[in-house]
Amino acid sequence: MIIAIGLYPGFTALDAIGPYQVFTNIPGADVVLCAAQKATVDDDNDLLHLCIEATFDDISRPDVLLVPGGDSARRFAREGHPVLDWVRRAHPHTTWTTSVCTGALILGGAGLLDGQLATTHWAAYDDLASYGARPTEQRVVQAGRILTGAGVSAGIDLALTVAAKLTNPEIAQAIQLGIEYDPQPPFDAGAPSKAPKHIHDMVARVIASRHPGTVA
Amino acid sequence: MIIAIGLYPGFTALDAIGPYQVFTNIPGADVVLCAAQKATVDDDNDLLHLCIEATFDDISRPDVLLVPGGDSARRFAREGHPVLDWVRRAHPHTTWTTSVCTGALILGGAGLLDGQLATTHWAAYDDLASYGARPTEQRVVQAGRILTGAGVSAGIDLALTVAAKLTNPEIAQAIQLGIEYDPQPPFDAGAPSKAPKHIHDMVARVIASRHPGTVA
Repeated sequence: MIIAIGLYPGFTALDAIGPYQVFTNIPGADVVLCAAQKATVDDDNDLLHLCIEATFDDISRPDVLLVPGGDSARRFAREGHPVLDWVRRAHPHTTWTTSVCTGALILGGAGLLDGQLATTHWAAYDDLASYGARPTEQRVVQAGRILTGAGVSAGIDLALTVAAKLTNPEIAQAIQLGIEYDPQPPFDAGAPSKAPKHIHDMVARVIASRHPGTVA
Repeated sequence: MIIAIGLYPGFTALDAIGPYQVFTNIPGADVVLCAAQKATVDDDNDLLHLCIEATFDDISRPDVLLVPGGDSARRFAREGHPVLDWVRRAHPHTTWTTSVCTGALILGGAGLLDGQLATTHWAAYDDLASYGARPTEQRVVQAGRILTGAGVSAGIDLALTVAAKLTNPEIAQAIQLGIEYDPQPPFDAGAPSKAPKHIHDMVARVIASRHPGTVA
């Protein structure tokens, strides 16, 4: 069973690595990080540099594919990028096609979400809707063979959900215990409905400033 | 303010990248991934390959240092490795010295935890105690300037705690909202006290098989 995480310049590190840590613990899973070229792929901080050993063409028929979000996702989704072509070609053959955060925009740009329930980072709901999707404020959303996760850290919850579907709940619980995923955030501000309004507004402004022309 | 994440071959990806995603959102923080050499560092799955641009010698005086855990941490902690030398030399000058998962064993091997309360992955409490530490089943443990986090995913909680100490709770909440850290695991099995006993025993056996001679 091949689980492919499709990367592109400007991806968000935790969007990819949260699921990676879960997937690599699934018995029998071959996890592959792939990209347009065998080269270095930089994250959206330009501080993390991954050496990629497999291209999208090498991994054309993954059983599971995952697309992380990232600062460049909005632009690539609109303007096109090899990651969209890969998703478009691979999706008809996957067991599960999945995304984290603004990775959903890339699924949208590839034409997979028209009329579908889906989620993304809370600041990108309007962008997601522009691809015909029906944005939903849930941590993980299933629409047929497509599973979308909310922002950044939601990839861990998404991947455990995928692990349970691919194997069984006991294996997924074993993986959860192995990575000691018993979250205890020091604050309860991780969702727009939970954060104080002035903090929400501050974060929305910061995100909007990074993406002119989008509505945060 | 320099926040350095010290890597070594066989580190666990999420141990490093969870905190990385939090730290890179701290205003004014320069986050650096460093290692013994400017070269590629592979994770403990040998599937993730990071190109490292800064050596331990380059980053000899970080304000915050973090050591992730990994399959090789037990061995390096016992037998020595440049990451221990780096921790030993840098620690007297840090504001915060931190670890995730079995990264605590490296702090222990560097002589930092003798007599101190500390935590690590639940399967490594005995290893931690062998360095004179007093293992504590808490998500994040503070002992003076040292903060240790529990297994793998606990690095996110640890890093938000560090972010609040370095700045203020409002900034930490903004970071939490930015990475949408509103965890909703599909199961409640992330701690030894919460997982069904047969699942706990299975995971303990798998971990023990990877580390002969240790007590899981």
